[in-house]
Amino acid sequence: MKIEYKLKDHDNKARLGLLKTNYGEYETPMFMPVGTKATVKSLTPEELYEAHSGICLANTYHLWLRPGEDVIKHAGGLHRFMNYKRPILTDSGGFQVFSLAKNKKRDITEEGVHFKSHLDGTNLLLTPEKSIEIQNKLDSDIAMSFDECPPYPVSYEYMKKSVERTIRWAKRGKAVHNNENQALFGIVQGGEFTDLREYSCKETVKLDFDGYSIGGTSVGENKDVMYKMIEDGIRYLPTDKVRYLMGVGEPIDILEAVERGIDIFDCVLPTRIARHGQAFTRNGKINLNNAKFKEDFTPLDKECDCYTCRNFTRGYIRHLITSDEMLGGRLLSIHNIRFLIKLTEEIREAIKNKEFKNYKKEFIEKYTKEKA
Amino acid sequence: MKIEYKLKDHDNKARLGLLKTNYGEYETPMFMPVGTKATVKSLTPEELYEAHSGICLANTYHLWLRPGEDVIKHAGGLHRFMNYKRPILTDSGGFQVFSLAKNKKRDITEEGVHFKSHLDGTNLLLTPEKSIEIQNKLDSDIAMSFDECPPYPVSYEYMKKSVERTIRWAKRGKAVHNNENQALFGIVQGGEFTDLREYSCKETVKLDFDGYSIGGTSVGENKDVMYKMIEDGIRYLPTDKVRYLMGVGEPIDILEAVERGIDIFDCVLPTRIARHGQAFTRNGKINLNNAKFKEDFTPLDKECDCYTCRNFTRGYIRHLITSDEMLGGRLLSIHNIRFLIKLTEEIREAIKNKEFKNYKKEFIEKYTKEKA
Repeated sequence: MKIEYKLKDHDNKARLGLLKTNYGEYETPMFMPVGTKATVKSLTPEELYEAHSGICLANTYHLWLRPGEDVIKHAGGLHRFMNYKRPILTDSGGFQVFSLAKNKKRDITEEGVHFKSHLDGTNLLLTPEKSIEIQNKLDSDIAMSFDECPPYPVSYEYMKKSVERTIRWAKRGKAVHNNENQALFGIVQGGEFTDLREYSCKETVKLDFDGYSIGGTSVGENKDVMYKMIEDGIRYLPTDKVRYLMGVGEPIDILEAVERGIDIFDCVLPTRIARHGQAFTRNGKINLNNAKFKEDFTPLDKECDCYTCRNFTRGYIRHLITSDEMLGGRLLSIHNIRFLIKLTEEIREAIKNKEFKNYKKEFIEKYTKEKA
Repeated sequence: MKIEYKLKDHDNKARLGLLKTNYGEYETPMFMPVGTKATVKSLTPEELYEAHSGICLANTYHLWLRPGEDVIKHAGGLHRFMNYKRPILTDSGGFQVFSLAKNKKRDITEEGVHFKSHLDGTNLLLTPEKSIEIQNKLDSDIAMSFDECPPYPVSYEYMKKSVERTIRWAKRGKAVHNNENQALFGIVQGGEFTDLREYSCKETVKLDFDGYSIGGTSVGENKDVMYKMIEDGIRYLPTDKVRYLMGVGEPIDILEAVERGIDIFDCVLPTRIARHGQAFTRNGKINLNNAKFKEDFTPLDKECDCYTCRNFTRGYIRHLITSDEMLGGRLLSIHNIRFLIKLTEEIREAIKNKEFKNYKKEFIEKYTKEKA
C-alpha cells in the first residue's frame, strides 16, 4: 500500500490524525528522527523504538553517493539494510545538492542540478527522474519530489522562476514514479512571498500527491517570517492529506506549526545538539559542558521517561562529554529524540482534550521563563 | 566483603574457578571489558550485561585527572557514577603514568612517580599511597597495587632494582588500604628474567594479597617470550587465589595463558580494533574497510549470538565504518567483546569436560588457517 491519512480530531487548526503505513499505524502530530546515512547517528533501531519513534528519515543524496542505491536494493531495500522495522521516509536529495555543494560548482538547469560530489569532487547530475529512481530502489515508504531550495532571501523574480521550475520537476518526478508500496509527497515552496506560496500550493495540489510538505521555512532568527510562510503554504492544502514541515525541530516551532495545522516534522537538531553536549529540558536547553553540572547527580529532566534519564545523571553525562566519550552524545541523543517525541504525544493528548492552546502556552512559559 | 576465589576444577594447568564478589558470582576464566574513563567506549552497561560481561575495568589515572575521585565519591562511588551493577576492578594508574607520560617529564623516585598530566601539563605525583587512596574513594571491588612498568627490554640491573622497588611500593600501598569491601591485588613483574619473576612472585605472595596479577608480558611480536614470562610469573602463586594477566586480549594469547593457569584477562583490543573497523571471527580477524564486504549481507560471524550478529550484516557495518558513522564502531565493539567473553565460556566448558587441549587446538587451527 501507499500511506493513508485520516483526520481524527482537531482543536481549532491543530490536527490529530492517523497515518496508516506498510509498517503500522501512527498518530500525528509526529516527530521523525533523521537517519541521514541510514543510521540515526550513534543509535540502534531498538533505541528508536524505545523512544516511540514512528517514521524515520533517510537521505537520498547521501545514500546515492555511498553505498549507492544498488547496494541497498541488493540488500533488500533500506528497511532490511538498516534493520529499521517501522516506516521510512526518504527526502529527494534536493536540499543536500544545494546545501552541500555551496562552495563548489553547481549549475541549475531545466534538466536538473549539475554539481560536484562533496566526497570526491566527481561531476554529478541529479534530476527529478533520477531522484525518484533512486528512492524507488531504496524502497522507502514515502518518497519526496525533487525541488529547488533557493537561499533566503532571493528576489521575487528568482523565486517565481524557481517555484515554476519546481512544479515542472514535480510533474516529471511523478511521471516516472514506479513503486506500488511507496507514497510520493509534493513540496510547497515560494519563500516569504504569499502569492508564490499560494501558486506553489495550488499547482502542487493539482498533481494529486499522497501528502504535502512545506519547504524553505527555516530561514534564520526571524520566527515570524517562518510562521507566516507556514500559514501561506498550508492555506490551500487539502484537509485529507498529511502535511509535513521539513527540517523543523525546535520545541516552540513544533508547537507554533501544529497550531497552524502541521502534522509531521523532522530535524537533525536533537542528535546534532547532543553531540555538542546539549539537552532539551522542560526548562529550556542545557549545556552539559557547563561546570555547574559537575556534581549534579540528578537526571537531565526529571519529567522524562527515557533510558538516559532513568539510568544516568547530569554529572556522569558531563564527564562523558568533557572526556570526548562517545557514550555522552549517544545518551543525549536518546534523551533529545525522546523529548521531541514525547512533546508530540502530549500535543496529541491536548488536541483530544481541546486544550492545545493552553498546553502550548504553559509549555512555552516553562521552557522560556524558568532556568534549567 | 572482599572477593573469594574457589578453584572448582582443572584440566592439566587450566583452571575453572568461581569468583564471589559484592555483585554476584562469576566463573573463571573470564574476560573483563575495559572502561577506561568509567565507560566502555560507546557502550551502555546493559549492552555489557547482554554480552555476559562480569567484572569491568576502570582506570585510576584517568579518573583521578577527570572528573576527580572526589566527584565520583560524592556520586556514591564508581558503580553509581557509571551505573554498572556488576563488579568493577580499578587498575593502579601505574601503567598509564609510564605509557602516557612517555614524551614528557617523568621522574621515578622512591616516593613515587613525578610527571606531567597528559591533559594540561600540570605537575603531578602519583605514589603507592595516593593510588590506593584514590581507589578506596572510587570504591571499586578490586584495587591494584601501584607498580613500576619498565619498558622492554631493560637491563637485568635496572629490572632488579625496579622489582625491588615495586615490592616496597606494594607494602606501602597495602599498609594504607582502607576499604572493607574492596579486595587488593599484588602484581608480579620481572620482565623476561626467570629469577627476577621468581623473586617478585615469592616476595609479593608473602604480602598476602587477595589475588595476583602478572604484569609486563605484552612485549611485542615474540609470543614465546610472553608465554615464558607467564610461566615464570605464575609458578610460585598460591592455587587458592585468582590470577590475572593484565592487558592481554588476543584470542590465541588467552588460550595460551589459560593453558598456563591464568584466570582473568582484560584488554582494550576488542573496542580499539572495533573503532578501526575490525571484527573477530572464528576464522580470524576481518577488516570491514575491505571492499569485498560491500555487498556481503551475512553476519560478522555466523556462530555468534551477539546483538550485532543477530541484527546487522557485514555490508551495513562496512557502510557505517566507511561513512564514519559512530554506530559502526559501536556494533563492532558489542560483537568483539561478546566474542572474547564467549571464548572464555567455551574454555570453561572445555575445562569441565577435560577437553581443553583439544578445544584450543581446534580453535587456533580455524582461527589461523581458514579465511574469513
